[in-house]
Amino acid sequence: MNSSVHEPRTLAPGTLRIIPVGGLGEIGRNMTVFEIDGKLLIVDCGVLFPEENQPGVDLILPDFAPVRDRLDDILGIVLTHGHEDHIGAVPYLLRLRQDIPLLGSGLTLALIEAKLKEHRITPYTLEVREGQHERLGPFDLEFIAVNHSIPDALAVAITTSAGVVLATGDFKMDQLPLDSRITDLRAFARLGEAGVDLFLVDSTNADVPGFTASERAIGPVLESVIAKAPRRVIVASFSSHVHRVQQVLDAAQANGRKVAFMGRSMVRNMTIAADLGYLKVPEGVLIDTKKAAELPDNRVVYMSTGSQGEPMAVLARMANLEHQIEVGKGDTVILASSLIPGNENAVYRVINGLTKLGATVVHKGNAKVHVSGHASAGELLYCYNIIRPKNVLPVHGEYRHLVANQRLAIDTGVPEENTFIAEDGTVLDLKDGIVEVAGQLDLGYVYVDGSTVGEITEADLKDRRILAEEGFISIFAAIDPQTGRIIVGPEIQSRGFAEDESVFDDVKPQIVRALTDAAENGTRDTHAFSQVIRRTVGRWVNTQHRRRPMIVPVVIEA
Amino acid sequence: MNSSVHEPRTLAPGTLRIIPVGGLGEIGRNMTVFEIDGKLLIVDCGVLFPEENQPGVDLILPDFAPVRDRLDDILGIVLTHGHEDHIGAVPYLLRLRQDIPLLGSGLTLALIEAKLKEHRITPYTLEVREGQHERLGPFDLEFIAVNHSIPDALAVAITTSAGVVLATGDFKMDQLPLDSRITDLRAFARLGEAGVDLFLVDSTNADVPGFTASERAIGPVLESVIAKAPRRVIVASFSSHVHRVQQVLDAAQANGRKVAFMGRSMVRNMTIAADLGYLKVPEGVLIDTKKAAELPDNRVVYMSTGSQGEPMAVLARMANLEHQIEVGKGDTVILASSLIPGNENAVYRVINGLTKLGATVVHKGNAKVHVSGHASAGELLYCYNIIRPKNVLPVHGEYRHLVANQRLAIDTGVPEENTFIAEDGTVLDLKDGIVEVAGQLDLGYVYVDGSTVGEITEADLKDRRILAEEGFISIFAAIDPQTGRIIVGPEIQSRGFAEDESVFDDVKPQIVRALTDAAENGTRDTHAFSQVIRRTVGRWVNTQHRRRPMIVPVVIEA
Repeated sequence: MNSSVHEPRTLAPGTLRIIPVGGLGEIGRNMTVFEIDGKLLIVDCGVLFPEENQPGVDLILPDFAPVRDRLDDILGIVLTHGHEDHIGAVPYLLRLRQDIPLLGSGLTLALIEAKLKEHRITPYTLEVREGQHERLGPFDLEFIAVNHSIPDALAVAITTSAGVVLATGDFKMDQLPLDSRITDLRAFARLGEAGVDLFLVDSTNADVPGFTASERAIGPVLESVIAKAPRRVIVASFSSHVHRVQQVLDAAQANGRKVAFMGRSMVRNMTIAADLGYLKVPEGVLIDTKKAAELPDNRVVYMSTGSQGEPMAVLARMANLEHQIEVGKGDTVILASSLIPGNENAVYRVINGLTKLGATVVHKGNAKVHVSGHASAGELLYCYNIIRPKNVLPVHGEYRHLVANQRLAIDTGVPEENTFIAEDGTVLDLKDGIVEVAGQLDLGYVYVDGSTVGEITEADLKDRRILAEEGFISIFAAIDPQTGRIIVGPEIQSRGFAEDESVFDDVKPQIVRALTDAAENGTRDTHAFSQVIRRTVGRWVNTQHRRRPMIVPVVIEA
Repeated sequence: MNSSVHEPRTLAPGTLRIIPVGGLGEIGRNMTVFEIDGKLLIVDCGVLFPEENQPGVDLILPDFAPVRDRLDDILGIVLTHGHEDHIGAVPYLLRLRQDIPLLGSGLTLALIEAKLKEHRITPYTLEVREGQHERLGPFDLEFIAVNHSIPDALAVAITTSAGVVLATGDFKMDQLPLDSRITDLRAFARLGEAGVDLFLVDSTNADVPGFTASERAIGPVLESVIAKAPRRVIVASFSSHVHRVQQVLDAAQANGRKVAFMGRSMVRNMTIAADLGYLKVPEGVLIDTKKAAELPDNRVVYMSTGSQGEPMAVLARMANLEHQIEVGKGDTVILASSLIPGNENAVYRVINGLTKLGATVVHKGNAKVHVSGHASAGELLYCYNIIRPKNVLPVHGEYRHLVANQRLAIDTGVPEENTFIAEDGTVLDLKDGIVEVAGQLDLGYVYVDGSTVGEITEADLKDRRILAEEGFISIFAAIDPQTGRIIVGPEIQSRGFAEDESVFDDVKPQIVRALTDAAENGTRDTHAFSQVIRRTVGRWVNTQHRRRPMIVPVVIEA
């Protein structure tokens, strides 16, 4: 993973150390650790979702190694907003020390508290809002409003004796957001005037030219699709996208339809958002699914989860007729969501399934029903020009995004040598306006699978990939080590190898012969005998079947 | 797969039967069977590439069941063009009967002949060209020029006593193609005037509004990227895209650069295309990779394979520094290709890898370096209006594409009841201008894996998916069936389960107890004992580890 691991130098007093632990080289598991004078501050602690070459993995966490042995030095975790890739790993960090204070806006804290409840953890929280200052030991924090695809997102300016760092979190610059809460460029300008020594900036859309369209542009499209829909309307989106849901509620209301929420996370999050006043539910619009079933089809909108084709979510179950709502001819399904790379086939399977049932499917491929939550290149240029940071660390992105963001910084006049393309675990030190790379930690991926955290290794995943591609053949034999003679067995089993078991009749005599030959040549130990079986079966299966299944020999002394 | 399997009625003399065997409900393995008066004609015989939920599968073939027992009735296979999804399954069909005549254009036949050579098959071929008529028993064939992302593509009009069928193959309607060989709308008009009873039409881009841009639009972009490139340029594209490669050659030439082909299929196909005159190689432009290495970096363009992120292709190996060409700072890589759904993560991994090495990567996400090979909705409307077919069968597409294409037919005035949304294996009968659904065959997927064809079942793939997600635990025991006492074992092995082997110490006594308990309750047979082990281990692993690995018990009588 990390190309040039080297121990960081010892941190001098009065120098600020910045370690991006996750989120560089990947979209997800965002986490940054700040350290000065022996004290630690963490910004965000999110999860990464696995790709297809990480089979069976539920979640990927940041590697907590840089803080694991120094939990008592952590003064707090700032959560910039409530998305999984920024808060999802908090429960796993709090398992190590439950009373680390969590700082965030009202909605952010409500969402992490709901999540922590499932983990039976009651956190210690401090609600903050834009404009507010908080002092945590050597860290003076100022919170700044930013606009994103979830309400109540914050950037944070961290002032220490070593200098000022501004971290955007995820953001964009919608100039007419639904809640009128714009990214506070006046605060950015003020901080810039005073001097920002290091700017940590969201890179997700840095390679997208121009400007991200306003969330508001989607409303009229939703309204017109719903107006034309002859029967039921089912809208799928992210369960945390309060403003998207707001627009669905408003469009339904305008068309005289009621809305029912579907899917556990949608119901949970929208209840929180409505209770806290982030979601403004028009009087009488919201009903439950039971009531919805009693209304005429053309009076109902279902708001559901599953926009990424997740097989267990509402939408995929509908497409497979495994849901109480039987989608049929005349129904309209709107996927008001992005299409995260890697999910394409799953999403298209859902679209095909719904189309086959007779539904009309509207999605970002054929209508303007989604805008991104991240600033495009044009917006980022504004930021660089307003802030004029001394140093820049592009964060939140794959390598290609970080490099595109760096290019924007350089284009606005930041000297190239003051821009840093870092990896997870790169150690940066700031002092007197100068940032230097002080080391590179060897951080890994921490996989969550079922109740297991961090026990799955790259070798296990390699095993799984081989098992997936080729299956396995297991061979059991109890042998007399003096002669190599098989007393019990060979018993051969295979799965995923996809040949009739009778094919093994062929190789059994070869195993018998190979073992006695090996014994004649002096082999006595069971491990060596099992290697003989592995080679014999491996050669046979490769020449006879041109395949490379995993071969698992088990030899014991009879 | 097929919702309503029912045996087709007996085919009456003088009625034309049409069976789409592959390509409906999927992009790939295109194959259609035509039958009249006891004789069969096949149009195309392609492969489908597997998705991520079909692990280890190399290729997917059409199910040859409808022709398998009637090989001697097949009069020929018309190949509309040389893409894998139209010719790739030919070797597997010819294995059943080698002398089935293959009809196609010069380039198409050259490509299938090269492929068949690898399978040690010399086919019986008949080269045809646009405007040509051929009579095969009851089938009168007319070949019509169409424009696509490979030269020399043909549509085919099939006239029988039962009526006229026009099949487009894959096509688009670039009005200024590089080779000036446009889709022959005058022929379409003439056939339409005379009456087309059934129109089989490419659906791939039916849900894309407007018109597919001209291939010619890419040339200036390639030229300007190459002109600005400070060092080497590496272009990746499909190895059959002769006109894309032509434009790379021309752009290189205009910039005073030489071109070297890289990748086995690129070298093979471009040699064929150049030999046959489809690729016009500018004098002196082409060199081999050895010569290229000796030239200054800014005088070279490498034309390579691997545009879909295929791990073994040139581009991915370059990104991983596993190729003799070491990509570095200042190099420019152009992915002049589409991004096939499902390949996103693989392609982005390659882009990130190349970016990390210092290369600038240009792709369709940030520059106009690709156009599709298929007609968009606007072009399809022209076709429908020019041909005015009596009946329409959208082909070549997922369900959503077929439905979008049907909608275009209806919008141009084809009565809805004369449009057919069919599946693989749907049996359509044509007589006197009337098309009726005559049955639905139960056709499956035929998987190629290594040297195995058709032996992998859905159950095997399910096993592989479980193995990928969860791994397996195998338990061996030789027992005394009278007492359930274990004489040898239990020997427990696991892979991909990702826990230390010592965890099994926990479950071993449970197995011992469960077996003796079962024997006390009258169990004697080894299968029943193995079920006892499966349940015991399954319950343990689920409660202790919240996991569901495959459990493979092996019990033998000691």
